[in-house]
Amino acid sequence: MKILDFLMRRSSAPVARDRLQILLAHERSGTGNAELINQLREEVLAVIAKHVSVDPEKVQIKMDRGSPISTLELEIEISGLPSAKAA
Amino acid sequence: MKILDFLMRRSSAPVARDRLQILLAHERSGTGNAELINQLREEVLAVIAKHVSVDPEKVQIKMDRGSPISTLELEIEISGLPSAKAA
Repeated sequence: MKILDFLMRRSSAPVARDRLQILLAHERSGTGNAELINQLREEVLAVIAKHVSVDPEKVQIKMDRGSPISTLELEIEISGLPSAKAA
Repeated sequence: MKILDFLMRRSSAPVARDRLQILLAHERSGTGNAELINQLREEVLAVIAKHVSVDPEKVQIKMDRGSPISTLELEIEISGLPSAKAA
């Protein structure tokens, strides 16, 4: 089963929408930075917001600080391109 | 089965290492930007490289431009923090 089928089947919407799902998983051997996932969260969102308009109310964030593995799941409903520059 | 178990089991290394796995999935309703995943790739890597040192030879990238869903999988073996600023 392709990883994607697993991801999309779990939360596929009845009506096709533009949607971006991001999963970050950080496996630490022991000395790794336990806060890496948290540090990346805002910056990854900022990168995405440069390319598509992100409605904060349509962003779902799930973080799971485990050991040795921490995960961050972002699900973003995309409504359109960021405000296009004056043509 | 938690999404993470699926991800980690598929490619878990024999020896615990510090590893970051990122999966981006973009589901488009039709008018969506088909190149979004490609645009995000370099910028997401740049964000990560600010927090951990990334050896280009230890970065695996898999892109799958499908319709309606495109995916990007990044697997990065982390060797340590970026060169710490002078204390």
